[in-house]
Amino acid sequence: MDCGVAGVPERLKAMILKEGKVLPNGILKVDSFVNHQIYPALHMDIGRYLSDPFLGLGINKVLTLESSGIAPAFATALTLGVPMVFARKKKPITMQEYWHESAPSHTKSGVVDIYVSKEVLSDRNVVLIVDDFLATGLSILALARIVQASGAKLAGIATVIEKTFEGGRELLMKSHQTHIHSAVRISRLSESAISFE
Amino acid sequence: MDCGVAGVPERLKAMILKEGKVLPNGILKVDSFVNHQIYPALHMDIGRYLSDPFLGLGINKVLTLESSGIAPAFATALTLGVPMVFARKKKPITMQEYWHESAPSHTKSGVVDIYVSKEVLSDRNVVLIVDDFLATGLSILALARIVQASGAKLAGIATVIEKTFEGGRELLMKSHQTHIHSAVRISRLSESAISFE
Repeated sequence: MDCGVAGVPERLKAMILKEGKVLPNGILKVDSFVNHQIYPALHMDIGRYLSDPFLGLGINKVLTLESSGIAPAFATALTLGVPMVFARKKKPITMQEYWHESAPSHTKSGVVDIYVSKEVLSDRNVVLIVDDFLATGLSILALARIVQASGAKLAGIATVIEKTFEGGRELLMKSHQTHIHSAVRISRLSESAISFE
Repeated sequence: MDCGVAGVPERLKAMILKEGKVLPNGILKVDSFVNHQIYPALHMDIGRYLSDPFLGLGINKVLTLESSGIAPAFATALTLGVPMVFARKKKPITMQEYWHESAPSHTKSGVVDIYVSKEVLSDRNVVLIVDDFLATGLSILALARIVQASGAKLAGIATVIEKTFEGGRELLMKSHQTHIHSAVRISRLSESAISFE
């Protein structure tokens, strides 16, 4: 196995097969290396891998959604040499003027509200959206709408794990013709087997 | 100004004076470089600065609380070469066995629940707690209690900005004799002036 940046997909697949658990509702539990515990050195390689197709596009901001998106977004933004913004799910009392969208939540009950301060996103920005998962695409779509509302340009979307069978890529491409780059694409998920594209 | 790791406190003080805003309730708004937008290269230097006193202590896990703690914890854990765990404020449906504590919230109304999976913290761990702010110390105290409950050893606490006048350090030292290291210590905060120690 290639242990450098090029080997990121294979390393992630191996970790998903070893440590991932498929819960009855089709949710992939990857708490031990994506959603709760992370390995910063692995995430640095993920960030380098995710940023690679977007070098030279003039990206000047990485946007993600708290909390699981922060680690891959940090590593990607560090590679690109640009600031990173993590959208908030609760409006902090320190946030005065903001963009707001909401999206149905897959892993948490109900609706997720998404807030980005107008102080950190504007029409001067060229934005790469980074997140841990691309599944239904609804929360990333909400981020893309905030990018659009701010007048910024959306340069692309990068995610660590894509579940292709949930249709997120198609949904996003319908409204935003943009480049979507995932480190790992899962095409089938059941308690007995995980298939990759 | 020293632009390397040694200059981190001075660089943070300059940014707090330039971009920070003191809200009427004594809350320091640093959304533009700590709580909402971050500069990964600056945070890497913060991580190096925060980890410095804890090198060689056998630390094998960094623990923080989502979401604002994740960026400094990531950078600190990367420097130390160890995994980082971000405690959750809502129990994800993927989390089955966990440690739980709660703490009154300063910037959000009500109580903050804190969850750490038993899968990622145990008596084999030597833990450094990292957070963005040390104010009343109540949420860090809750993290320290989780470390204690798990049987892990608490090696120290590192924070980006300490508000010394809120007594968090004294509270933490009362129950956990440990080394507390902050990059910047604010001794007085008003709408007209910010004083540093």
